[in-house]
Amino acid sequence: MNGAQALVHTLANCGVDVCFANPGTSEMHFVAALDIVGTIRPVLALFEGVATGAADGYARMAGKPAATLLHLGAGLGNGLANLHNARRAGVPMLNIVGDHATGHLQYDAPLTSDIVGIARPVSPWVYRSLTSAQLAHDGARAVAAAHAEGGQVATLIVPADTAWGDADGPALPINPPQPQAIAPDAQDRVVEALAGGHRTALLMRGRALHREGLEAAARIAAATGARLLCDTFAPRLDRGAGIPAVERIPYFAEMMTRFLADIDTLILVGARVPVPFFAYPDKPGWCLAPGCRVLHLAYPEQDSAAAVLALADRLPGGKSPLAPAPRPERPTGAFNVHSIGQAMGALLKDAAIICDDAATASGAILAGTANAAPHTHLALTGGAIGSGLPMAVGAAIACPDRKVVCISGDGSAMYTPQALWTIAREKLDVTVIIFANRSYRILQIELERVGAAPAGPMAHTMLDLSDPTIDFVGLALSMGVESARATTIDAFCDLFAGAMRRPGPYLIEVAI
Amino acid sequence: MNGAQALVHTLANCGVDVCFANPGTSEMHFVAALDIVGTIRPVLALFEGVATGAADGYARMAGKPAATLLHLGAGLGNGLANLHNARRAGVPMLNIVGDHATGHLQYDAPLTSDIVGIARPVSPWVYRSLTSAQLAHDGARAVAAAHAEGGQVATLIVPADTAWGDADGPALPINPPQPQAIAPDAQDRVVEALAGGHRTALLMRGRALHREGLEAAARIAAATGARLLCDTFAPRLDRGAGIPAVERIPYFAEMMTRFLADIDTLILVGARVPVPFFAYPDKPGWCLAPGCRVLHLAYPEQDSAAAVLALADRLPGGKSPLAPAPRPERPTGAFNVHSIGQAMGALLKDAAIICDDAATASGAILAGTANAAPHTHLALTGGAIGSGLPMAVGAAIACPDRKVVCISGDGSAMYTPQALWTIAREKLDVTVIIFANRSYRILQIELERVGAAPAGPMAHTMLDLSDPTIDFVGLALSMGVESARATTIDAFCDLFAGAMRRPGPYLIEVAI
Repeated sequence: MNGAQALVHTLANCGVDVCFANPGTSEMHFVAALDIVGTIRPVLALFEGVATGAADGYARMAGKPAATLLHLGAGLGNGLANLHNARRAGVPMLNIVGDHATGHLQYDAPLTSDIVGIARPVSPWVYRSLTSAQLAHDGARAVAAAHAEGGQVATLIVPADTAWGDADGPALPINPPQPQAIAPDAQDRVVEALAGGHRTALLMRGRALHREGLEAAARIAAATGARLLCDTFAPRLDRGAGIPAVERIPYFAEMMTRFLADIDTLILVGARVPVPFFAYPDKPGWCLAPGCRVLHLAYPEQDSAAAVLALADRLPGGKSPLAPAPRPERPTGAFNVHSIGQAMGALLKDAAIICDDAATASGAILAGTANAAPHTHLALTGGAIGSGLPMAVGAAIACPDRKVVCISGDGSAMYTPQALWTIAREKLDVTVIIFANRSYRILQIELERVGAAPAGPMAHTMLDLSDPTIDFVGLALSMGVESARATTIDAFCDLFAGAMRRPGPYLIEVAI
Repeated sequence: MNGAQALVHTLANCGVDVCFANPGTSEMHFVAALDIVGTIRPVLALFEGVATGAADGYARMAGKPAATLLHLGAGLGNGLANLHNARRAGVPMLNIVGDHATGHLQYDAPLTSDIVGIARPVSPWVYRSLTSAQLAHDGARAVAAAHAEGGQVATLIVPADTAWGDADGPALPINPPQPQAIAPDAQDRVVEALAGGHRTALLMRGRALHREGLEAAARIAAATGARLLCDTFAPRLDRGAGIPAVERIPYFAEMMTRFLADIDTLILVGARVPVPFFAYPDKPGWCLAPGCRVLHLAYPEQDSAAAVLALADRLPGGKSPLAPAPRPERPTGAFNVHSIGQAMGALLKDAAIICDDAATASGAILAGTANAAPHTHLALTGGAIGSGLPMAVGAAIACPDRKVVCISGDGSAMYTPQALWTIAREKLDVTVIIFANRSYRILQIELERVGAAPAGPMAHTMLDLSDPTIDFVGLALSMGVESARATTIDAFCDLFAGAMRRPGPYLIEVAI
């Protein structure tokens, strides 16, 4: 048995069952070992950002790491933006990055680079394996590391000679560290604050935003009057009819400040203090009300669902005030992001997963789908656009029985359009909606907000995607994804309803 | 005047006249300043790897840096693979990377990352500007740094508040350090070696591979019998009818060993000792003949053209044996990489620039074009595929009077297909040829060579691009590039000849 075979066996034994891959020469032994083990599904990506974004989407839904397989520093570099998003999502992920054989590094061959250095900014755990005999054990350590800290990116660098050299056999799986229990005195302080008549809010993240956690949170809210909040970009949120709703913190700093103005006690449950994405001249960067007290019920690496469940059990039996609102009607008339949101609210398939990279269209879709059939929403956690299509790949592979809906801006989609090919190749049950406003709309807004406007024609061309317009229907078809364009709300409803009924890849370009 | 305006003025004064940009919120003041200065041409890329690859292609042809404009660590990350190629090409390049305002970093907002850490593996010079008053001077230092060491990647990180804060005005340009002169004793040793009846070869890189340098090298060869070599992947090589030819070192280790076997004195002229791309079990990683002596006439950061010119002047007047070979005939019959190479050799436009990301098709094209009309060849210096289309953008902007021909594998093209949109938007005179063999053909070869074969079906799917096939004609059309498919050599000749006659973007998909 060679090192690569021992490694792949070990990863399989540790629960890894998918590998999102874009391999090169130095990863050929790993690739060959996949057949020998047979239980890890290899999924080819044409670009590494698709592989890393897919592993993020997979982890958010499966709650465990997929492997990526990347070719040296350049391949890892191509995956960096979506690794940044994964780092911010706090998901477990395992990168396997091939490297030159140990003895070859001295020659500084053209593809040689500082792989550890490239990995470090996005991967808290990085290790370069040293011998084929040790590689399998390093793999077990890497999987355990991916599960640590509530989920993190772990990167194992595999020199080619550790892959082709001899190994004894697979290594034993390593039990990942269990999350630290919620401190009783932290809970006491929160109970006291909630009872004290304060204007309190719970800001939740992690498993607290899964259905069971939300139901517990709703009991807390009913018993105490606390507001329930989630971040602008929560990694995963269950929502829709019958699921207790949370308020989403707004994106822009001054809206965030107003939103948080009446809260004098903010209770963090797996979340951190909310901060705006960007600073602006003469606008506040700290948005909590003056004197707002911050309590930690659960830190990000703790189990936030367990925290809200335990807290709810300590409070008098508040009953969730939930009266499911009716789904929106199928819209007629105007064709814009609001009516499209309403259409999605009316027609969304039960248990769908929405992968959201829709930027300025996102708010209207979230509003329209608030009372849609129950579904799960995955947001752009790190702000590096180009995550939506790749996440859809991973979510669809993690949950083959659920419909995945990717909503993406036209600008966002063009960072990782190669994901469409993988969606077609794997026949994934993904409906893609491209909001083609022919611009980086968010930047047209931000240009004003940062005080750089008025700007001239050169600046405006940098925010404009209309010359030439991108034909997303043609783009999707060129990669094997069936596709159509909607220019009326009626046509959109028909296309979207058809896509919800029919499994498999489909793309709808919405010209708005 | 704000910091961004002072910076843009300074860059323009330092000779920067193009900016390949994919900006975000933190770069809006830089974007707005472009109109105020007016002499830097902004070129929008939909993906940062296009911007960095374009700056590489621009620098190879213009001999001076373009600026890129990138959005924080994630945007820089997306550009990393082509920055790796640029680092290996030794070209001057300037990255302007926006960052959060200094005071905002304390909040660790979602897009915050270790930008210096991400830049360092690809950028020998990295600096994070600290005040708006100093930003313009930092820009001048960055341009000088890009010119240093014979050309290198320099990265200036621009916090948003240094862009929007007050500045006095532009900074003075800084004279870049001049390359160190060739040491007389280095030249003496080389003259002695060349006269000594040794089996000598000159391995050249840099400006020595421009026409003037090659003509001097041919005089040296005529006078001494020395062989003239270039690297497998030279950043830039003038070649074709009437230009002295050099022998290209082969790609695979054992072929490289055979190729170098009869050389007992290797004279490096701006090059480093040649090494194979990858190591293989039981194959040599060091390919020089045993006992081969290595002399340095010019180090990579020196002027290799000056070195060969001075050397040629010291030798007895050898006359270049150049008798221009006739161009190949327009081929008929078989349709394969060899006949396509011949067709390109027959029909290539005078002074064309070939951007080569064609992997396994490259050798046949180089053979076919050896006696084509004089042209310039730009190779994949760092081995990170996905450089061809972006380089074509930059080369076309650097040389608007020359036809650019991008030859790319199908696998390679899918790393940075967004470059097609920029080619269409800027109406660049670029003809793209996609060699669609529906596979990562090089990996099918390498799988055998590294000893990982025989491999099973999972492994083979990782090397296969046939399911679904990518319709490159449709892909190009979707981004506004006129396009056609050739399935016979006659059709290819007609399409290619038409593309050579007609300026503007065009793509030919070659199904081989």
